[in-house]
Amino acid sequence: MTFDALFVPDEIGAAVADGAWLQAMLDFERALSAAEASAGVIPAEAAAAIGEACTAERFDIRALAAAGHAVGNPAEPLVRALRKEVGGQAAGFAHWGATSQDVTDTAAMLVSRRALSLVVRELDGVAGLCADLAGEHRGTVMAARTILQQAVPTTFGARAAGWLVSLVEARRRLVEIRDERLAVELGGAGGTLAALGDRGLEVLRRLSEELELAEPVVPWHASRVRIAELASALDVAAGALAKIGVDVALLAQTEIGEVREPPGSGGSSTMPHKRNPIGSALAVASAAQVHGAASVLSGAPGNELERGLGGWQAEWGPLSQALALTGGAAAAIREVLSGLEIDAERMRANLAELTAAEHASFLLSERVGRAQAHELVGEAARSKSFREGLVGAGLTADEVDRALDPEQYLGATDAFVDRALAFYDRERG
Amino acid sequence: MTFDALFVPDEIGAAVADGAWLQAMLDFERALSAAEASAGVIPAEAAAAIGEACTAERFDIRALAAAGHAVGNPAEPLVRALRKEVGGQAAGFAHWGATSQDVTDTAAMLVSRRALSLVVRELDGVAGLCADLAGEHRGTVMAARTILQQAVPTTFGARAAGWLVSLVEARRRLVEIRDERLAVELGGAGGTLAALGDRGLEVLRRLSEELELAEPVVPWHASRVRIAELASALDVAAGALAKIGVDVALLAQTEIGEVREPPGSGGSSTMPHKRNPIGSALAVASAAQVHGAASVLSGAPGNELERGLGGWQAEWGPLSQALALTGGAAAAIREVLSGLEIDAERMRANLAELTAAEHASFLLSERVGRAQAHELVGEAARSKSFREGLVGAGLTADEVDRALDPEQYLGATDAFVDRALAFYDRERG
Amino acid sequence: MTFDALFVPDEIGAAVADGAWLQAMLDFERALSAAEASAGVIPAEAAAAIGEACTAERFDIRALAAAGHAVGNPAEPLVRALRKEVGGQAAGFAHWGATSQDVTDTAAMLVSRRALSLVVRELDGVAGLCADLAGEHRGTVMAARTILQQAVPTTFGARAAGWLVSLVEARRRLVEIRDERLAVELGGAGGTLAALGDRGLEVLRRLSEELELAEPVVPWHASRVRIAELASALDVAAGALAKIGVDVALLAQTEIGEVREPPGSGGSSTMPHKRNPIGSALAVASAAQVHGAASVLSGAPGNELERGLGGWQAEWGPLSQALALTGGAAAAIREVLSGLEIDAERMRANLAELTAAEHASFLLSERVGRAQAHELVGEAARSKSFREGLVGAGLTADEVDRALDPEQYLGATDAFVDRALAFYDRERG
Amino acid sequence: MTFDALFVPDEIGAAVADGAWLQAMLDFERALSAAEASAGVIPAEAAAAIGEACTAERFDIRALAAAGHAVGNPAEPLVRALRKEVGGQAAGFAHWGATSQDVTDTAAMLVSRRALSLVVRELDGVAGLCADLAGEHRGTVMAARTILQQAVPTTFGARAAGWLVSLVEARRRLVEIRDERLAVELGGAGGTLAALGDRGLEVLRRLSEELELAEPVVPWHASRVRIAELASALDVAAGALAKIGVDVALLAQTEIGEVREPPGSGGSSTMPHKRNPIGSALAVASAAQVHGAASVLSGAPGNELERGLGGWQAEWGPLSQALALTGGAAAAIREVLSGLEIDAERMRANLAELTAAEHASFLLSERVGRAQAHELVGEAARSKSFREGLVGAGLTADEVDRALDPEQYLGATDAFVDRALAFYDRERG
Repeated sequence: MTFDALFVPDEIGAAVADGAWLQAMLDFERALSAAEASAGVIPAEAAAAIGEACTAERFDIRALAAAGHAVGNPAEPLVRALRKEVGGQAAGFAHWGATSQDVTDTAAMLVSRRALSLVVRELDGVAGLCADLAGEHRGTVMAARTILQQAVPTTFGARAAGWLVSLVEARRRLVEIRDERLAVELGGAGGTLAALGDRGLEVLRRLSEELELAEPVVPWHASRVRIAELASALDVAAGALAKIGVDVALLAQTEIGEVREPPGSGGSSTMPHKRNPIGSALAVASAAQVHGAASVLSGAPGNELERGLGGWQAEWGPLSQALALTGGAAAAIREVLSGLEIDAERMRANLAELTAAEHASFLLSERVGRAQAHELVGEAARSKSFREGLVGAGLTADEVDRALDPEQYLGATDAFVDRALAFYDRERG
Repeated sequence: MTFDALFVPDEIGAAVADGAWLQAMLDFERALSAAEASAGVIPAEAAAAIGEACTAERFDIRALAAAGHAVGNPAEPLVRALRKEVGGQAAGFAHWGATSQDVTDTAAMLVSRRALSLVVRELDGVAGLCADLAGEHRGTVMAARTILQQAVPTTFGARAAGWLVSLVEARRRLVEIRDERLAVELGGAGGTLAALGDRGLEVLRRLSEELELAEPVVPWHASRVRIAELASALDVAAGALAKIGVDVALLAQTEIGEVREPPGSGGSSTMPHKRNPIGSALAVASAAQVHGAASVLSGAPGNELERGLGGWQAEWGPLSQALALTGGAAAAIREVLSGLEIDAERMRANLAELTAAEHASFLLSERVGRAQAHELVGEAARSKSFREGLVGAGLTADEVDRALDPEQYLGATDAFVDRALAFYDRERG
Repeated sequence: MTFDALFVPDEIGAAVADGAWLQAMLDFERALSAAEASAGVIPAEAAAAIGEACTAERFDIRALAAAGHAVGNPAEPLVRALRKEVGGQAAGFAHWGATSQDVTDTAAMLVSRRALSLVVRELDGVAGLCADLAGEHRGTVMAARTILQQAVPTTFGARAAGWLVSLVEARRRLVEIRDERLAVELGGAGGTLAALGDRGLEVLRRLSEELELAEPVVPWHASRVRIAELASALDVAAGALAKIGVDVALLAQTEIGEVREPPGSGGSSTMPHKRNPIGSALAVASAAQVHGAASVLSGAPGNELERGLGGWQAEWGPLSQALALTGGAAAAIREVLSGLEIDAERMRANLAELTAAEHASFLLSERVGRAQAHELVGEAARSKSFREGLVGAGLTADEVDRALDPEQYLGATDAFVDRALAFYDRERG
Repeated sequence: MTFDALFVPDEIGAAVADGAWLQAMLDFERALSAAEASAGVIPAEAAAAIGEACTAERFDIRALAAAGHAVGNPAEPLVRALRKEVGGQAAGFAHWGATSQDVTDTAAMLVSRRALSLVVRELDGVAGLCADLAGEHRGTVMAARTILQQAVPTTFGARAAGWLVSLVEARRRLVEIRDERLAVELGGAGGTLAALGDRGLEVLRRLSEELELAEPVVPWHASRVRIAELASALDVAAGALAKIGVDVALLAQTEIGEVREPPGSGGSSTMPHKRNPIGSALAVASAAQVHGAASVLSGAPGNELERGLGGWQAEWGPLSQALALTGGAAAAIREVLSGLEIDAERMRANLAELTAAEHASFLLSERVGRAQAHELVGEAARSKSFREGLVGAGLTADEVDRALDPEQYLGATDAFVDRALAFYDRERG
């Protein structure tokens, strides 16, 4: 990935790097041998020798990938290298009864699990910050903006509550997938486990336990539903993060100035005064890339017959990217929110008098009916002084005061904050 | 949609047509009035009058859509027309406290629920057929084909079991979304419910009950997670159906001829002999379009601030298409499978002797180690007679017989069929 | 398409409707017969009889589409219906030597040509308006905003020039495709034209002339490059239009208020004061849908062997949508720009003093070097009075005046306007 | 990119690696200084010193990318590092008047140009092989397969001609973009070139000459049309290559066996007999990923106002991937075709008698009219012996012989080969 250190925290980057895939493939081989030894399929000593050899440091993943060009996957060269590393009688028992796609698919699941835990941790950080903001700013009045126009009053807390709910929904699905849908792959050459004789299912079960992955109903070499589901869940999470970025950047516009990203970032090479919403921009850029990667993965939940012509090989890169960049988006937004400067005064000052129009219209409609009220308030809105226009429209001075007081027109914002916080508490258990 | 009758069954087409959207918008207005009357927000007589006017026949959806051009949605003109239709005092109470997006979003949910039930019904039909095929053909031996090459023996039942599991997974998610994620939208002008005073939450609750939709934690005008989730689930389902189509078409190739789509379709305008896998082609074509539509919906789970600049308006068409074409794909595959001609003899005859290579290699490896066995069997495979080659490689005649008998190398296919059927039974409850 | 009248002007909608496809298919059949008669392949009287029958009114496209379900395309039922309509000996000569995909592919080209001309006309309208704005507002000073922050001064004319250049580039490609890449399809059953004996190429040439479409080098049943190119060009055009919409909506924000969409649109159902940037929103919504449709078309420039399994059937809907919605986006932006209210005073007033920072920094750097200048001006920017800060930083009062005068820091904006206008003039010929 | 050595040849991989981007950014800085010195904007000695420092070895791109996290791009840290490297008075003149996006955009163009040349070279290799195959196999009769069913006879040469035409079309567009659309970016802070005073256009012109890139009409910071065009062209090229892969893999199926990928690749880890179409699979896998990457780039041809919120940052990765993987797909197909084993006998043997049906029908229709002929031949096709059925249908023995001789029904295949070769010759000049 070009300039990956710019987008992705080191730990997440490492979790999806080729080295992590290598280790995950070796974890499969080690666990397979252990499972087969327990099931009496291969000798215990062979399993021990294989297990010992299964450390990433002994192999050169770049060379293996290059060698994989001739066979279309990195597992086949790895197995050859592993057997060489194991040596002796034991060598022949490595990878016993498995096929290359068993290795790469299970590795994809292991890489995903590890990366997902980091992604979820970052999401939790962001959710926690949103929860804090929602609680602290439940009374911070500002304009709700619809179709990029000021509409009616709301609170910054309510907005943060909206962010929070999306994040919790996105997180819930990711956790569900991590815990239930990441599954071992083991089908052998044709998805029948024939090479394991009558021990196939036992090895499958033991392998699943060994790796703490779900045991699939049937091999999924050609059914990529779980990959598509994971990709979509990452897409949603990245999008929910990007939405926060967009909102922050819109509120941080020079003319609005209601929030600012924390100091220490966003400088410009030529403009000394600038503080750009860079964390927001990175989240947006990351989410766009996640969407592209996810579209590859969700585009073909089925591969041809028992193993596809390229479909599975197309997954490794996009899956790694989707994981890494969702994590990157989360990290960026965590940085943004953890020091977000919030200018409550500016929020209040920006709130245009006209955002009282709906309130005024409702007050007036009790007297003249809704249609006429809508029209009269519309006229008032176009008049020189909205306040005077409202009086002219028939509201009493007291009603005008009420209409123009945003605190009196916050509706259920406070309750929505409570609901969002309760939802968050429920979900994180 | 161009030539929609070609792709989509009438009933599903009708469920997402503009008329269905119109009725769904009216259902919202009716239910809102009822909920508001129960909550004491508007007079019961007004609610009754509004409810009576809420039938699609009274309105011209095409004219409303055209009028919607000026405001960016069809709800605003509909509300105007509805008030005219209601007349009198009651008119002003229609749409009380709601915003246009409340109408279109809730309508999207209602349309989705109705269409999803049809889609799920079609999926159930396909799943049932797959289950039948899996059970009936658990002993029908054929070649497993990986990367479009014969690999080892499998059964047609195992293949159908694989289809079944994907369908059940896809269906599970769709049902989950239909039952839990389709939610009312009600937020009013800025997502605060301010126009409903202190009755906002009560109206929200009653409205959800009235429409039997989930009650959202907070308004979701600018958080499109549930739309993205629905789109992704449809994408997966359509893809799982297309995979069956691809498999059928591959097995139906002239040179393979193991299956044929049922007679009565697939004729050619110029070639009298042809029987094309047309149902399969339609499923593939539908899934491709679903993927495009879904990419619009999953691409922006967040909209700007409290209501987006075009994001929500971009959903209506793609959502309708994704629903309709997933249903179309399911119907096409149901037709394909319901009369699928299966040529078990041809399957057995096609099975190349070389698919015994792995079996032979495993048998031989007990004697000479795996690496050498692999090499020797490879040589045998390239020799004139594979059988003689195997003898030459060191297998006994009896072992050669065993190796060359596909029935003896079916591994866990039977058990996988059982597992798939049990999974299916569990899921449909 | 859901609510199509909301998004697409009637004329463009009609140009891609099923009726237009029907007529285009009939145009193919008529022209084919004419070409074959000229080439001596079929009798002239047969061609005449066929030609007469080729009017859309005689056929029911919905019924044909429904009948097309069994064969996977609407052309086969149409040919049957056409032969019935023609009757007698002539009937057998209709569709002579052609295959169904010849009909639908050529129809796709004819539909595209007609729709493209309308799209280009709309684009021309938008480009003309941009050119006017660029010329008229070359002196209208405003803030350039980068990453949604004010940066340095620019002019509204320069911004409009930027829009113009993108539109002209997008238009250029569309016209190129319309004039050079839209090609006849004629290959017969297997792309060999065998049924036409030794007259195949002659018929192909005459047919191309008859329909004024390009003559392809070889049949393109399974090579969809031209469809992918068209889709991409529409995607670019729609995106260029959406960019104008986004810019307008950003500049129209309540707090910025530099432009407003023309009156008469953008009203809200509940907020009497609102004027939403609805044309912009529609352009954005349309472009998002075009992108989804285009992704279907560009996703598979190749189909399997001589005719694909669903690839070509997946094109009809997305192609129609991409054409219609690009036209819709153009029409929406034309409406936006044709009455756009531009508040030059507000533009000037909004221009923050700090946008002078770069200018000040350059002036100062002549004295103290760039790095130090950057730092000193940065300090001034954070001080209470930027003006005083600049004096403190070492600029003379005169230099400060110059720095703070945006007119003195407009760079090449005027020249860029000229270049854009000249480019536009060159391109429209 | 995960396992990039598996997909991408070293030279192309290096051309888009971070190091290549670094050098390209430095090339921009060097050329900018040279242009500014020529234009009298900065001292010649400064330009010389800067130029000398502009070598990639002096910088650590990974560290720069990490530092770029805080500002959202790698150019700003690079400029700081470059100034440090240059030192003295000259340091302040580096990057004079430019903005970070000028650097990254121009670097994107330089990287694209270099990579495109390699991609085009690979495409040329593939096209040459297709041309050879078309010429050599113009008489190699085989079945045309439509919707995966045998249709009528064709030749392998005609099929290769079809591949060739798509490749030439794809290549033409790539070359056009490389030579005409790759343009310098230089706009400065707000796209006005204000920091260059009255020399802005001169510097722009000289810089374009220096880098041999097109001179844009106006800065394109926020208009990404050229990026979208490039992405689409790569998508088309990769798709055209994948189509060859799909065709090869289909023809190489065990039961068809008409072609085989060259020996030395495609082995299986467990099945000694297998020779998988791995090059084809890699091309398919690469094209799928290119499509995902391209969708990011074509999805937003416009960015917000004068510089987008993340849109441009989202391009670097997908652009590099699209370039690399298109090159990878081309290399894979070059390998496939350069040693493709073609079994002409098998092609002839596979050709089903029934592919004569259309021919027979045409011969018969001269006697009984087309509709009846279609029906009678259809009956014959379903009878025990097609030959006898045809006699029964009314064809003479001689006509039956003619009908059943595929050589007599090859239509324009030979001419199409000629046309494709001529087109190829014309295009490569």
